[in-house]
Amino acid sequence: MATPAPSNFTRIRRMPARGSYDRDVIYAILDAAPICHVGHVIDGRPVVIPTTHWRHGDRVYWHGSAASRMLEANAGGGEVCLTATLIDGWVLARSGFHHSVNYRSVMCFGVGQALRERDEKLEALTGFVERLFPGRWSQLRPPTEKELKATLVLWMPIEEASAKIRAAPPADDPEDTGWPVWAGVLPLALARGTPEPDAFVQPGQTPPEGW
Amino acid sequence: MATPAPSNFTRIRRMPARGSYDRDVIYAILDAAPICHVGHVIDGRPVVIPTTHWRHGDRVYWHGSAASRMLEANAGGGEVCLTATLIDGWVLARSGFHHSVNYRSVMCFGVGQALRERDEKLEALTGFVERLFPGRWSQLRPPTEKELKATLVLWMPIEEASAKIRAAPPADDPEDTGWPVWAGVLPLALARGTPEPDAFVQPGQTPPEGW
Repeated sequence: MATPAPSNFTRIRRMPARGSYDRDVIYAILDAAPICHVGHVIDGRPVVIPTTHWRHGDRVYWHGSAASRMLEANAGGGEVCLTATLIDGWVLARSGFHHSVNYRSVMCFGVGQALRERDEKLEALTGFVERLFPGRWSQLRPPTEKELKATLVLWMPIEEASAKIRAAPPADDPEDTGWPVWAGVLPLALARGTPEPDAFVQPGQTPPEGW
Repeated sequence: MATPAPSNFTRIRRMPARGSYDRDVIYAILDAAPICHVGHVIDGRPVVIPTTHWRHGDRVYWHGSAASRMLEANAGGGEVCLTATLIDGWVLARSGFHHSVNYRSVMCFGVGQALRERDEKLEALTGFVERLFPGRWSQLRPPTEKELKATLVLWMPIEEASAKIRAAPPADDPEDTGWPVWAGVLPLALARGTPEPDAFVQPGQTPPEGW
């Protein structure tokens, strides 16, 4: 499944061999990344904000407070660049120059749009919780109208987007492979720790499956 | 140790109780984060690029190819926003609204500057490798002049910067604490995997200490 032809912005210029415009690749990275970084232009300056995101179909969503800078930047239909990155390992070569990182990254360009309708917001926020913790939404105290009003849900279409992946051993120069130092990949992955129940958890209440 | 008074840009507007302008806090987060996301304004649009960074004193450094977009954006002294974020856990509350993330994040605003002098570059790149793998630089095949020329090292002073930290259990509304669902923190941390030597590693060559 291909996205439209890359624009001047999404065309991958550095290391094009690592790039992809395949929708399935882009979706898989967006779905695996716990957070993203959203860039805005505010008063002509770049502002990069970490936030949680989720995907539904060909849209990527993120959210914030209805009183945040993101709203200021997006209410007027501001351009954003949403970048989500997973670090998979340090790549240690035999020269400093070829040290690298194994990673998976997606950049999406577009205009952030706020969901205006109550029901749309509710549906999107349900998807946000369910993406991470299937089955949890229906167990929660339902949202109030006030909470829904106070929550800003933004989205943009995944159209002008690209993925970049490095998943390989070091790429030493052939004449360096005999250099007497260890080289290879030191894997990194986000790992789950032991759940920490809060002070009000009752016997029989258990953390989400898999934790 | 305090940074200068926050500017209009670094003043933390959302959840100011989570914010800090303390230099030691900012430095510790920059030093712990494996990568950062650097935002630029290119042709009026935001562009957010993941990259590795390192800190030396009151400067933060990052690097790239001398042929990259970052150079285009910075050679003219463009403004950047460098944001580094560590995810420490999912925060599960009893209402959707109070779900959150435990994290540590730093935003630095400034003008990216390229190192021009060969020796400055060499010193900075040494610091980059040594930060992650103490003692490794001297074991590597030394850099060539061509490699040094091809490497772009950028830096900016850590002046207009702020940290934001959430490290707490869920903040449920008092009337929700009896709601019958598990709540607490699901910890996340970047974990080290088993080193993967490449095809040319010889007996007796070992990965960096701690791996």
